Amino acid sequence: MPVSAHDSNYLWISLIVGVFGLLAALLFARGVLSSDNGTAEMQKISNAIRQGAEAYMKRQYSTIGWIAIALAVVLFVGYSISPFTRPYAWKVVVSFLIGAVCSALSGLTGMAVSIRSNIRTAAAARSSLGRALQIALRGGAVTGLVVVALSLLGLGILFVAFGGLHDPRQAPYQLVGFGFGASLVALFAQLGGGIYTKAADVGADLVGKVEAGIPEDDPRNPAVIADLVGDNVGDCAGRGADIFESTAAESVGAMILGAALFPVFGVRGIIFPLVAQAINVVASAVGIALVRSGEHEEPMHALNRGYYVTSVLALAGFAAAVYFMLGARWWLLGCGICGIVSAFLFVRITEYYTETRFHPVKSIALASETGPATNIISGLAVAMETPALPVLVIGAALLLSYYFGVLGLEDVTTVTVYAKGIYGTAIATMGMLSSSAYILAMDTFGPITDNAGGIIEMSNQPLETREKTDKLDAAGNTTKALTKGYAVGSAALAAFLLFSAYLQSVHDIVGQRLSMVGQMLPANWSFSTVNLASVPVFVGAMIGAMLVFLFSSMAIKAVGRAAQTVIEDVRKQFRENPGIMEGTSEPDYGRCVHIVTGAALKQMVLPGALVVLTPTLVGIIFRYFSSSFSLDKLADMPMMNGKPVNLSGAEAVAGLLMVGTIAGILMALVMNNGGGAWDNAKKLIETGAHGGKRSEAHKAAVVGDTVGDPFKDTAGPSLHVLIKLLATVTLVLAPLFL
Amino acid sequence: MPVSAHDSNYLWISLIVGVFGLLAALLFARGVLSSDNGTAEMQKISNAIRQGAEAYMKRQYSTIGWIAIALAVVLFVGYSISPFTRPYAWKVVVSFLIGAVCSALSGLTGMAVSIRSNIRTAAAARSSLGRALQIALRGGAVTGLVVVALSLLGLGILFVAFGGLHDPRQAPYQLVGFGFGASLVALFAQLGGGIYTKAADVGADLVGKVEAGIPEDDPRNPAVIADLVGDNVGDCAGRGADIFESTAAESVGAMILGAALFPVFGVRGIIFPLVAQAINVVASAVGIALVRSGEHEEPMHALNRGYYVTSVLALAGFAAAVYFMLGARWWLLGCGICGIVSAFLFVRITEYYTETRFHPVKSIALASETGPATNIISGLAVAMETPALPVLVIGAALLLSYYFGVLGLEDVTTVTVYAKGIYGTAIATMGMLSSSAYILAMDTFGPITDNAGGIIEMSNQPLETREKTDKLDAAGNTTKALTKGYAVGSAALAAFLLFSAYLQSVHDIVGQRLSMVGQMLPANWSFSTVNLASVPVFVGAMIGAMLVFLFSSMAIKAVGRAAQTVIEDVRKQFRENPGIMEGTSEPDYGRCVHIVTGAALKQMVLPGALVVLTPTLVGIIFRYFSSSFSLDKLADMPMMNGKPVNLSGAEAVAGLLMVGTIAGILMALVMNNGGGAWDNAKKLIETGAHGGKRSEAHKAAVVGDTVGDPFKDTAGPSLHVLIKLLATVTLVLAPLFL
Repeated sequence: MPVSAHDSNYLWISLIVGVFGLLAALLFARGVLSSDNGTAEMQKISNAIRQGAEAYMKRQYSTIGWIAIALAVVLFVGYSISPFTRPYAWKVVVSFLIGAVCSALSGLTGMAVSIRSNIRTAAAARSSLGRALQIALRGGAVTGLVVVALSLLGLGILFVAFGGLHDPRQAPYQLVGFGFGASLVALFAQLGGGIYTKAADVGADLVGKVEAGIPEDDPRNPAVIADLVGDNVGDCAGRGADIFESTAAESVGAMILGAALFPVFGVRGIIFPLVAQAINVVASAVGIALVRSGEHEEPMHALNRGYYVTSVLALAGFAAAVYFMLGARWWLLGCGICGIVSAFLFVRITEYYTETRFHPVKSIALASETGPATNIISGLAVAMETPALPVLVIGAALLLSYYFGVLGLEDVTTVTVYAKGIYGTAIATMGMLSSSAYILAMDTFGPITDNAGGIIEMSNQPLETREKTDKLDAAGNTTKALTKGYAVGSAALAAFLLFSAYLQSVHDIVGQRLSMVGQMLPANWSFSTVNLASVPVFVGAMIGAMLVFLFSSMAIKAVGRAAQTVIEDVRKQFRENPGIMEGTSEPDYGRCVHIVTGAALKQMVLPGALVVLTPTLVGIIFRYFSSSFSLDKLADMPMMNGKPVNLSGAEAVAGLLMVGTIAGILMALVMNNGGGAWDNAKKLIETGAHGGKRSEAHKAAVVGDTVGDPFKDTAGPSLHVLIKLLATVTLVLAPLFL
Repeated sequence: MPVSAHDSNYLWISLIVGVFGLLAALLFARGVLSSDNGTAEMQKISNAIRQGAEAYMKRQYSTIGWIAIALAVVLFVGYSISPFTRPYAWKVVVSFLIGAVCSALSGLTGMAVSIRSNIRTAAAARSSLGRALQIALRGGAVTGLVVVALSLLGLGILFVAFGGLHDPRQAPYQLVGFGFGASLVALFAQLGGGIYTKAADVGADLVGKVEAGIPEDDPRNPAVIADLVGDNVGDCAGRGADIFESTAAESVGAMILGAALFPVFGVRGIIFPLVAQAINVVASAVGIALVRSGEHEEPMHALNRGYYVTSVLALAGFAAAVYFMLGARWWLLGCGICGIVSAFLFVRITEYYTETRFHPVKSIALASETGPATNIISGLAVAMETPALPVLVIGAALLLSYYFGVLGLEDVTTVTVYAKGIYGTAIATMGMLSSSAYILAMDTFGPITDNAGGIIEMSNQPLETREKTDKLDAAGNTTKALTKGYAVGSAALAAFLLFSAYLQSVHDIVGQRLSMVGQMLPANWSFSTVNLASVPVFVGAMIGAMLVFLFSSMAIKAVGRAAQTVIEDVRKQFRENPGIMEGTSEPDYGRCVHIVTGAALKQMVLPGALVVLTPTLVGIIFRYFSSSFSLDKLADMPMMNGKPVNLSGAEAVAGLLMVGTIAGILMALVMNNGGGAWDNAKKLIETGAHGGKRSEAHKAAVVGDTVGDPFKDTAGPSLHVLIKLLATVTLVLAPLFL
């Protein structure tokens, strides 16, 4: 049944908005690039950072590229083995590769502008704080807009190419490869970047501050440029890839659920997620363009103003979309509001646990007085407390949006209550993501201002300028912490949507296979049960939770190993060239960048492989379990050639996915917030509390901060990606588990 | 249908064995008490420890007593509100109180012997290592045997009293109160003891070693006796209560599942768990009695020999029980072997992660060279890796024993496949627990030898004697660590059995209520589905996992708060009485014991209440959720008065219970093994590695050890209990969620 011209217009308009998003990004980039780029001394530092970052990105993406190509081959072979999946093999592989390329592209372009924005922000800070803020935000906006626009365009074009305008119910399933490609690249980008940034940081500190006794950011330290490069490749490119795959994976999941509501909304339910992304692009671009800051205003105020503008515009856009596309069912707008409000609450809770003015950080600072052990103990206690409120918020958001979904579709009789409720949670997720481009712009603002501060410091600018960049840097630290909260929140809210997409997908695959052999699904059967009381599901669930712990352990160990190579190289440089410490000759910054790049990329492979292989193996091994483990009553079970379809593999994977997601969300919160709290406890002491800098309390707080670093910058953010990668890998591989 | 004389004989024999177990404990106690109790100086120290421990236990159990009475009232009122549950109100409350009293009794008597065994072990060590080992083990055996015998007698007598010989299928449900009473006391005993022991330890160290600069265990430190008392109340009484409730809760769970197999085994399936405990008593008593050690033998060898004897006897007893009671279905013996082998593997994995000769501890020791931060980071990385292998072992044990259960009952057609499989996992759990009295004796050996060492050290005995007690102490540290591994393993394996008991219980309650209003359960409905894809279950699951993190955070914070009161008192004593530091007057040890007692008991209330209240609130609140959240097809649902029975509350609690259990097992492993690894990394350095004592590496390792202490001695062991308390509280409160 082909789509009507009226309905397809929504899709075309969205795609045009996607192109507009890329143009807006181009405009922001031109504005930034045309501004003053500082003194020669500043340029020298900035160029060193840029070259290091570019060298890293080039090697990282070529490593990831090889992994992606290898996986594409495996995927193609896996899909080609069975006659059931053979027809989709090329579509899945093509969308996988396009997803991977788009993800890499959005990381690369955003990054390219960011590492050119840092020096321009620094240069502008010499005259005007407001102008500097605007350059940093607009530099970040390039990442934000490119990420969302590419995801929208990639999905939209593939949807059309895969015949979405003729058979809109089938096309979304063939897009799952896009989400998987995006997640895979995101995991490696986040993991590799996270290992790089912390290995360089820890390595530089241990050998510079501890062994050689030179201050932080001292140009005599051969690892100092590697450290500054780390901020870009970890925070900026990594988070870009993270949000890209959130947007992509969650849009695909929502489109699959939209297909289940086809009897109600037709194709409009399926393309609604793309329209939501178009709203995101427009609302965020306007919000960013309107941000202006006075010379004496707190930078956070200006940034928050832009966020409120974006949120209001997104809400208005949502209301319009509900009116035109979803038949003015206003309860569904309530779902969207649930998402927007959850995003707000998540950000506030993150603030409570990580900012110096609240109790948790104060308690860690106080515990530092009795030494590093009590600092660590109280930090861990705070960290383990942090999931409590977010879990309640997610729980309430899920229950409410489900309920609103049911209410909004109360008069509909052609779909199940469950499908209505789950579509409600999907709309809530879309609501939460409807300001993601703005959030990402704020996030990228962080490393840009951090680097701008570093450039100002290393090029000996006047104190007045330094104060301005310090202000921007403080705002950047806040926005970085808040974005992590937002990223976990969206992963959590989206989790449910992605599970359901998986179940829906398994259900449809079974139906399809039966119809290929001329048989039918039982009318009253639906694969909507993941029974924890069944042994394979429970064992899968335990493995899912264990995977999260093992992955975190591996990620943290990887930082240690990569840091060791930095330490060895710096020691060697000091030994080979005594002129470095005397200040008579320059260290070889590039060699250090090169070494930590190689180490980080080597170390990211094992944890990354773990995440992809575990659900695959569980699905394939459990597939061979006797159906005596299954609890479904045989009467209701779908039968093929007289035997019940064996769902053990698919069910065990579902358990792994769901409980792995729960564990992943909790551990990500523990690590991000714990790390943030340790960091700020140190900063609180540096402002003079508990004896100030160089006191025993400060030494203890430095220990806590060092422990928190791989938590908040490597393992924690990688866990957001892990959650979504689990969802997309299971979606893509679902046919192999049956 | 009354039970035949032949069948009831199995029960009577078991009860007689229970009495025999108490007599054996008495004999061991007399043997220990009649031996030499050392010099006057040794007695003085020992008496101080005894008085402190007794004072603590008295106050602890009176606090717990009040909590238990309050809960009994709440339970009675809760059960009396609805006409459905009113008839059971008094039975549940009586079994709850008896369970609580038995748990307290087994803690108290075991403890009373242990604190008298320490000085006798010390006295014997002056002449013979073999004799000292025997005294310490037999002292521990009293706890082990009393715990298992009381659980067996308590359950057996209540079973008879509640009409088990006339209506054996109903009686097990009325025993759930016994398990709940036991778990409740165990939680508070473990939590209070754990807070006490670490608060005294950390407080004594911080103010003694760090502030006053006096060595550890220096008699001038007013907190030194409190510290020694802590070993008894934390390790010895706490673990006794833990194993008591494991035995009790898991026996009740297995009896409920046995009731589901009534068509196959009759009453024999129900009393099989009691017979398994009788086997445990005999096998362990013989194993303990046979342990003899040469003067130059490693103590661990002698202890392991006894363990092997016990395991072989238990296996033989199991085989006999399968032959006589379960109709020689040998696959079911295979289930028991699964349990015994898992126990063995769990112990070996714990060894790998916590002993100095393996890689993990070595890696932490190596990381200590670069300071406390890297020590902590590598310790956390090891800790988060530790759940991986145990999860695979549990997964394999569950799948195998389920499968063996199905095979063993293949010819049976009167029960479902699921009931067969789950009964298999119950037998595996019984197998794992069939040497628990011996394991507990080995565990209690730990604090006895620890105290013996302390007494020898403080009373200035010759070096030769000290070397002997050091050897015993080292063995004691190993047995303590291994028992924790065993306790988590049994909790994990039992989890499934307890879930199923809960589901079975909900199913039967619904059936009972329907029959009270003259209606019937649909024939093809069974409450065996805990669907994670349903929103209330998923939200319950998230809350369960979050509960584990929040509880751990609270337990760790409680240690910090209680330690603060110790520090303040010691400072005050030094200020008020300057003679203490000069060695001219004695500090007031009793005051310090008194203060930390009060603080620990105060701090245990909040985390304890959290565990009881969370599932209760979730069950009651979710009960009011619309049944539109439920996914069961209405056709199959049990109906009451034309409306489907609302199971939202019971389902959400099931999700909470199951995922809370998974998270609890994982976090307990992380904390126990992480803490053990940090501890032994410090010990490894103290033997001279990485610079030895007083090196920078040693300082860093001390930080790690201090962080690990509340992990492995407070939060970790409390989590084992929490898991089982969650199961028993939900079993008891199930009627309120409907």
